[in-house]
Amino acid sequence: MLGTASAMPVPDRNPSAQALCVHGRYFLVDCGEGAQRSMVRFGVPLQRLDTVFISHIHGDHVYGLDGLLSTLAMGGRLAPLDIYGPRNLGPMLKFFLSYNEWIGYELRFHPLEMKAPEVILETKSLEVLALPLKHGVDTFGFIFREKEPQWNVEKEAIEKYGLTLTEIGTLKRGEDVLREDGSCIPNAEVAYKPFAPRSYAFISDTAPFPEEAAWLQGVDVLYHETTFLAEFEEQAAKRLHTTTLQAAQLALDAGVKKLVIGHYSSRTTDASLYEAECRTLFPESFAASDGDVYEI
Amino acid sequence: MLGTASAMPVPDRNPSAQALCVHGRYFLVDCGEGAQRSMVRFGVPLQRLDTVFISHIHGDHVYGLDGLLSTLAMGGRLAPLDIYGPRNLGPMLKFFLSYNEWIGYELRFHPLEMKAPEVILETKSLEVLALPLKHGVDTFGFIFREKEPQWNVEKEAIEKYGLTLTEIGTLKRGEDVLREDGSCIPNAEVAYKPFAPRSYAFISDTAPFPEEAAWLQGVDVLYHETTFLAEFEEQAAKRLHTTTLQAAQLALDAGVKKLVIGHYSSRTTDASLYEAECRTLFPESFAASDGDVYEI
Repeated sequence: MLGTASAMPVPDRNPSAQALCVHGRYFLVDCGEGAQRSMVRFGVPLQRLDTVFISHIHGDHVYGLDGLLSTLAMGGRLAPLDIYGPRNLGPMLKFFLSYNEWIGYELRFHPLEMKAPEVILETKSLEVLALPLKHGVDTFGFIFREKEPQWNVEKEAIEKYGLTLTEIGTLKRGEDVLREDGSCIPNAEVAYKPFAPRSYAFISDTAPFPEEAAWLQGVDVLYHETTFLAEFEEQAAKRLHTTTLQAAQLALDAGVKKLVIGHYSSRTTDASLYEAECRTLFPESFAASDGDVYEI
Repeated sequence: MLGTASAMPVPDRNPSAQALCVHGRYFLVDCGEGAQRSMVRFGVPLQRLDTVFISHIHGDHVYGLDGLLSTLAMGGRLAPLDIYGPRNLGPMLKFFLSYNEWIGYELRFHPLEMKAPEVILETKSLEVLALPLKHGVDTFGFIFREKEPQWNVEKEAIEKYGLTLTEIGTLKRGEDVLREDGSCIPNAEVAYKPFAPRSYAFISDTAPFPEEAAWLQGVDVLYHETTFLAEFEEQAAKRLHTTTLQAAQLALDAGVKKLVIGHYSSRTTDASLYEAECRTLFPESFAASDGDVYEI
């Protein structure tokens, strides 16, 4: 959690930014002012940054980007950097490059404009979906889903059955081994999944909307903005944000395992108040603070 | 001192920014990323900000400006904001306004392009000079000088001599009072200066240059970048920065009363090392850290 504040500056929190590490790859999700300093402060390796996802171009989600992009260049980055974000982020990147011609790596911008969740990035072990939110300007959430892993074969079984490489390949695909002598080595006996696929959703900023629970169904950890305490529901609606109780109800409806909240209004920065309200509906709620680490 | 780091992000310092309070007016000098949060953190009243001075458009001196300008608007600012900086800051402000049409106050940009110190702003009690530095891109330093204050008249004297308003006015202009009866009330006896004019110079970033000591002659407090320790003189020259010993020598040559240093390389962030080197030549050297307050 690199930044858990909303737009107005507060002493102890940066504006919105998160780093997500998946199988050794580092993703940055939103990049509010000061995100690069938070990365350094909290031990996220700046120079190993893989891909950037920007939810929308409100300053508290994007004004740290110019500084980060400069720092990567000063650090000697040569690898292209992929940036996903709404279409109106494009001119900001173009303007940045217009007065930073010295940048030594390629910025690859991928504009988002879907009306429902869509896979925007796929790696060997992961897929990333973007989904439209409801926030006045074009805004997107992101879901990171591990793919079903390959089967692993137990070491003891390799020795016990004298498995050949071909047979191990068969087991890794989830099939049984049928030998010429008619014997069968069942996949279920000797193979196992190293992990159950995990998922993380990043939802900021948005008013609640009808499809939200269905789109986020069953994610392991849901990060959701709760800009306002429940008593400010009217103000939340007006500004297209979500209250604590609305986020907790969503977590219930979507059947998520854990709810992590942030983006607190500068009016009330004591995160424990937000957490307490969420827990009245959804006990597995956790109020994020800068520097917190969640393992999924 | 809102930020005392140089360009590469470090955990405990923001990049360059300072707030200067003169007779209740707040000036911001440079606006590196995170400056607005430092202002809140260290008790500088954001909404009373008077004027902004930007030395040059390297990111560590200006990337906090967009966020600050947005925050002022969100806070309801209506008063125009004057921004002084090099000509190439203009397109950045224009671009910012192009996607922030909702900003409710006027930005008044004053491009700088002098070749020698020039008064750029004058108030009843203060004049601000800008001077060109030597740093690859157009870069300017700033000198803030209090004007000679009016004479004050001692309260006891008003009673003792039964001074009229006209006579007090005469004394405030520094003249003696000559009465019709031929008697004289000497200014020197009943009037005094409430303070000796003070001055502050902000010099960042620059390589040393020949006119520097003359242009900074006699300022009370000189802030000067010392990006590098003395052993890195070659690197400092290459990157158009100043070392500790060069800044201390300048402080001697310019006859300043106090030297405050900052903008430390991320290679060595222990400010006490920079301070110790400066003090070998100029004992009244002080290494600034974020949150430090200097009274002049």
